[in-house]
Amino acid sequence: MSFFKTAVRRFSSTSITRGMAKAIAYSEYGNPKEVLRAVSYNVPKCSKNQVNVRFLASPINPSDINQIQGVYPSKPPFTNDVCSSKPSAVAGNEGLVEVVDVGDQFKGTFSPGQWAILGSVNLGSWRTEMNIDGRSLVPVDKSAFPSIAEAATLSVNPCTAYCLLQHVVQLNKGDWFIQDGANSMVGIATIQLAKHFGYKSINVVRNRPDIEKLKEQLKSLGATIVITDEELMDRKTMKQKVPEWIQGGEVKLGIDCVSGRVAAEMAKYMSKGATMATFGGMSRQPLPVPVSLLIFKNLKFHGFWVTKWKSEHPEEFLKIIHKVEDFYRNGTLKTVNTELVSLKEDADEKTFLDTFLNAIEGHGKKIIKFEH
Amino acid sequence: MSFFKTAVRRFSSTSITRGMAKAIAYSEYGNPKEVLRAVSYNVPKCSKNQVNVRFLASPINPSDINQIQGVYPSKPPFTNDVCSSKPSAVAGNEGLVEVVDVGDQFKGTFSPGQWAILGSVNLGSWRTEMNIDGRSLVPVDKSAFPSIAEAATLSVNPCTAYCLLQHVVQLNKGDWFIQDGANSMVGIATIQLAKHFGYKSINVVRNRPDIEKLKEQLKSLGATIVITDEELMDRKTMKQKVPEWIQGGEVKLGIDCVSGRVAAEMAKYMSKGATMATFGGMSRQPLPVPVSLLIFKNLKFHGFWVTKWKSEHPEEFLKIIHKVEDFYRNGTLKTVNTELVSLKEDADEKTFLDTFLNAIEGHGKKIIKFEH
Ligand SMILES: C/C=C/C(=O)SCCNC(=O)CCNC(=O)[C@H](O)C(C)(C)COP(=O)(O)OP(=O)(O)OC[C@H]1O[C@@H](n2cnc3c(N)ncnc32)[C@H](O)[C@@H]1OP(=O)(O)O
Repeated sequence: MSFFKTAVRRFSSTSITRGMAKAIAYSEYGNPKEVLRAVSYNVPKCSKNQVNVRFLASPINPSDINQIQGVYPSKPPFTNDVCSSKPSAVAGNEGLVEVVDVGDQFKGTFSPGQWAILGSVNLGSWRTEMNIDGRSLVPVDKSAFPSIAEAATLSVNPCTAYCLLQHVVQLNKGDWFIQDGANSMVGIATIQLAKHFGYKSINVVRNRPDIEKLKEQLKSLGATIVITDEELMDRKTMKQKVPEWIQGGEVKLGIDCVSGRVAAEMAKYMSKGATMATFGGMSRQPLPVPVSLLIFKNLKFHGFWVTKWKSEHPEEFLKIIHKVEDFYRNGTLKTVNTELVSLKEDADEKTFLDTFLNAIEGHGKKIIKFEH
Repeated sequence: MSFFKTAVRRFSSTSITRGMAKAIAYSEYGNPKEVLRAVSYNVPKCSKNQVNVRFLASPINPSDINQIQGVYPSKPPFTNDVCSSKPSAVAGNEGLVEVVDVGDQFKGTFSPGQWAILGSVNLGSWRTEMNIDGRSLVPVDKSAFPSIAEAATLSVNPCTAYCLLQHVVQLNKGDWFIQDGANSMVGIATIQLAKHFGYKSINVVRNRPDIEKLKEQLKSLGATIVITDEELMDRKTMKQKVPEWIQGGEVKLGIDCVSGRVAAEMAKYMSKGATMATFGGMSRQPLPVPVSLLIFKNLKFHGFWVTKWKSEHPEEFLKIIHKVEDFYRNGTLKTVNTELVSLKEDADEKTFLDTFLNAIEGHGKKIIKFEH
């Protein structure tokens, strides 16, 4: 009896397919090149608590890669949703979608053509289409964003930047912070938000041939000071310059996505009692904290993980999403140095996979833009 | 006119000497062996706001050495008090004294024969006698202490232990902490206080030939678990053992006076959201914090400096001193593994200096005991 019921339900749901969708999936952890594959799958008509969406754009975030490698504590379940022969997870956590069809329960909330972003992690955003529980979608206002790049990257990087500035220590107008990876997407959002809030910043970037151009760009966005990691390491000059820059002000916050010696060196220029918030470890090195800074300068070394913050403050997080939307609307935030990579929805599986693999390998922030 | 006044004042104060006192002094920072010297000086009759004291015992703390080396941010002034030819500082910060003579202003507070400890740092405790501002003396109850060793070391190590357990995180009965340098004086006080408060502990000590004896000793004082640094480094065994030990409990606090890889390894066994408090760096290595512990386990790395805590909470600190006195009185605390080193007050300067230098070089906690 119960077998019969299940069989009927399964039949009825797969029978009303709307065409083949594509996804980047994996069935075991490892090097993306080795474990990722493109899969094609049917998407049934959505049930009453679901919304059928097509993806407009999905960014590639470092945490997505870590998740595929199996070194990220937040992990999607391996299911048979996109591949019946092999339990798989769809890669990617962040994405912008367009509503196509709405289950009865969400008819008042969503309508076809509307934009939304994924409100939870581990749903698998590197795909063209899915049916998604309506509660996992956060509607966004299409007209707020200059392009899909901003909307597609709304929930991770600018929200991280906002939380780092507002929820680690109490900064007041005129206070300073020091950050590394200042030309990362978080770094740039931090610079722009800091300008808005009236905070001053020392920004560290890696040296490069066109460094002056980058320095100028970051300054034009609101960075007070921009230095290279090599300049940071020149302790003699820094010990003279930092007091000149801050003019008796206080460096109350460190923002770190690099770790290693760069972060340790930044800490030396933080004021007594300041906090360093590490939210990434791009150097793949531990943070070698000088003991004297802990004991004598009372520095505090904390971490920040937007995924955890979100799950602990869901309502406040929604508010931040809408604040960030406003920041895009009024031009406080704009996305720079990101690259939209076009991918035809109906590309063959090899092209589909290669586009993602190339984007993963490439330099700078990449956002896959799915084209009809 | 003003020169005349000064000359008279100086003459009148040095003219009423009570005999030669001796001190360990330095006039430049460096290796103790090279910069310390013994000096003899006259102590005049104390003025009305002073108390004349003779030292009974003065411990040698790592921070005293750091101070002589010039790597300690809290520094005594170099004055001509003990050497008219060369501005000097008297070494040592902690000490037990006996009141000899009392200036008018403190007649009600102190009386000859009474015991007291130095209530501030940078007064120079490695000496036989001094006139001290009555406000810098904290009277203690002779009868509370089994020996002068406990009274002489009252203000730094047990108070540090007390603050580490009570003022870093909120520990409840049954909660766990993990500490390194567990056989240090702070470590042993921590173990005894933890037993009193009902906290459980994983204690790390350096391996040694008679390790089982040390383990037994620490357990008999109240340590729940004692392991060597080598055992700590065996990650496979530790990952199995720690959950067995803590039985679903939480390791909410790390206490670290070693830093380096030992501290980083301890952090791996701390519970989500736990805090590591570093109060020393005996390994002379920075603390290489794994980034994942910051981001995904939300561990916090803080420092603790009793000198700063004291200056920020002077009244509460006095209460802690009296609590610790009570703990000695009722047997909660006892001093073990400390060595009293006898030194005749009237020893010649060479003997005086050598006794200190040997104690500095020696292994284990040394307390110089001045004998009449
Ligand atoms: C219960 C009592 C606890 C204590 O007293 S805490 C000290 C305990 N001592 C130990 O653990 C002994 C073993 N450990 C060590 O010796 C340790 O090296 C130490 C814990 C000292 C110091 O730790 P570090 O190894 O981290 O520091 P350094 O010796 O490299 O000192 C440099 C650092 O300390 C700070 N420092 C040092 N001297 C000063 C001054 N003068 N003023 C201001 N700031 C200062 C300052 O930030 C300095 O940075 P730079 O300016 O870039 O050089």
